[in-house]
Amino acid sequence: MSGWRTFAWQDGRLTFLDQTLLPGETRYITTQDYRVVADAIRRLKVRGAPAIGIAAAYGVVLGAKELAGAAQFGEKVRQVISELAETRPTAVNLFWALKRQQAVLERNESQAEAAMIITALENEACQIAAEDEQVCRAIGENGATLLADGITVLTHCNAGALATAAYGTALSAIRMAHRQGKRISVFADETRPLLQGARLTVWELMQEGIPVTLITDNMAAAVMHLGKVQAVIVGADRITANGDVANKIGTYGLAVLAKEHGIPFYVAAPLSTIDLELASGADIPIEERAAAEVTSFGGIPVAPEGVAVFNPAFDVTPAKYVTAIITEKGIATGDWKRTFRSWITPNE
Amino acid sequence: MSGWRTFAWQDGRLTFLDQTLLPGETRYITTQDYRVVADAIRRLKVRGAPAIGIAAAYGVVLGAKELAGAAQFGEKVRQVISELAETRPTAVNLFWALKRQQAVLERNESQAEAAMIITALENEACQIAAEDEQVCRAIGENGATLLADGITVLTHCNAGALATAAYGTALSAIRMAHRQGKRISVFADETRPLLQGARLTVWELMQEGIPVTLITDNMAAAVMHLGKVQAVIVGADRITANGDVANKIGTYGLAVLAKEHGIPFYVAAPLSTIDLELASGADIPIEERAAAEVTSFGGIPVAPEGVAVFNPAFDVTPAKYVTAIITEKGIATGDWKRTFRSWITPNE
Repeated sequence: MSGWRTFAWQDGRLTFLDQTLLPGETRYITTQDYRVVADAIRRLKVRGAPAIGIAAAYGVVLGAKELAGAAQFGEKVRQVISELAETRPTAVNLFWALKRQQAVLERNESQAEAAMIITALENEACQIAAEDEQVCRAIGENGATLLADGITVLTHCNAGALATAAYGTALSAIRMAHRQGKRISVFADETRPLLQGARLTVWELMQEGIPVTLITDNMAAAVMHLGKVQAVIVGADRITANGDVANKIGTYGLAVLAKEHGIPFYVAAPLSTIDLELASGADIPIEERAAAEVTSFGGIPVAPEGVAVFNPAFDVTPAKYVTAIITEKGIATGDWKRTFRSWITPNE
Repeated sequence: MSGWRTFAWQDGRLTFLDQTLLPGETRYITTQDYRVVADAIRRLKVRGAPAIGIAAAYGVVLGAKELAGAAQFGEKVRQVISELAETRPTAVNLFWALKRQQAVLERNESQAEAAMIITALENEACQIAAEDEQVCRAIGENGATLLADGITVLTHCNAGALATAAYGTALSAIRMAHRQGKRISVFADETRPLLQGARLTVWELMQEGIPVTLITDNMAAAVMHLGKVQAVIVGADRITANGDVANKIGTYGLAVLAKEHGIPFYVAAPLSTIDLELASGADIPIEERAAAEVTSFGGIPVAPEGVAVFNPAFDVTPAKYVTAIITEKGIATGDWKRTFRSWITPNE
């Protein structure tokens, strides 16, 4: 990567990039307080499904350290885990990472001192982050096989290094294809209301020297109609057993448009995003966020005061619109449940 | 209307609402200078296909008045007409209104004094504005027949009173249905980059007491998927002989999504928007506007400096996605060319 990291863990402190300030300002937050981490997830200073999972895993470590001398240590760490689980409802990676930490706690709780449990939690968090980097690299390598030399790809929101430990998911595929010498260009949807595409994806791609053109979300249809893109690739916040995909609001519309224009629609995500406990997308809780995200911009009101707003942060794309789901284990192109089951052992 | 007007013509002065300042500020501009009118069209202080035509017609009057004592009066008025015609390329109502003024000039030029020609131009401009009000009322009455009691309608951009002399086109249908006592609710796309939906449509509907919910453009697909809207209704900037529709960027995507969800897609526009000289939408010149409209908001940059931008102001919806075109003469539901020809006599 080129001089910046989404996360760093050093001397028991978590450092992360405040993504709400990009691209204007590259400011890092360093903390020993799990509440600061929870707040950062809630306020999208850290965002992106895998990144939320990593931040939460480190959050558990920070919470456990704070509780080191306390009575009922295990019970209180479980409360920290609950608190972190309540920050955002849709991305399953958050719950996946917290479950891993809970399992570490439970494996060690009866025999070990708090200090040893904390070390185990710290190891697990570092492991989750290190795994994510490997996983994202593998997703990129698998995804790059689908991106031919010379094509232009449309992406939505930010499924980049900023959303993961490194490389990204959708952007990892683009990045790896680019590093392999393929000429790949990108159209980036700005992604209202919070403009993760304009602010984050454009920033990442420009840093990597990958040609990128910014559009507003409502231009994607015209861009497809004009023959300017040959593939759509996005990340995911939760994928259900039947292949339905929850991702940033606007993804579903892109999938329908891609189908109508005969353009492949790819989803790139780690296995930790696949939730085999949910049968279909109808079961995914969709976060609704504050009206002010839509009615104002940078503190400036853009709509009349008091207007009603509908502000779902995510939508669900039914599997029938998905050409392929790219994971670290390989590429699924249908027969979703069986393919996912073959990749995910019950213990994982 | 409730205390505000898009235009007023009094004592040889044109007064118009500066729509770039809404909803924060209701400021009128009064001018005797056609250059101020041209600039207002260029900068979208006046916008909406019918409104642009009306403003340009008055602009010709102001230009002619300024030239009253000049040699080669007719030639110079023609130059004013050319200048006004260059303000924006897509909406055909601009050229339609200017052609009407040019015809007035040509009918009177050889026999009449400049003063008499100016009076004729003034009468024609007032006639265009008065006709537009009648036409928009008729569009509304025709359109209202398609809107059943209790439905929720999605609209894009602002095809309201602000885009016309009064009532609007798409919003006239909603307004008339509402005035008939039907319970109609509206989802308004914010309409990036310039937010005419958030700023103007929401403002108009709230003033009229019509329930409106604001969404970002990329939420429309989810709103349809969730069964929250039963019809889409938009305006148009140019309709070609085959029924293709140029309208605000984002319209085409909505039309595809409406079809996928089995929701009717209605276009409301005056006959002056129909351009029988163009065979299909492929012939419509599409205005591309400045990158800064996308990369910054209220003067605040929202994307990294130097990013490439594609910023088409309009897109073209092929006729196959259009359920009906609502005009002052009636509702077309196909067989477009023949229907349009039956409405538009060659002299009109």
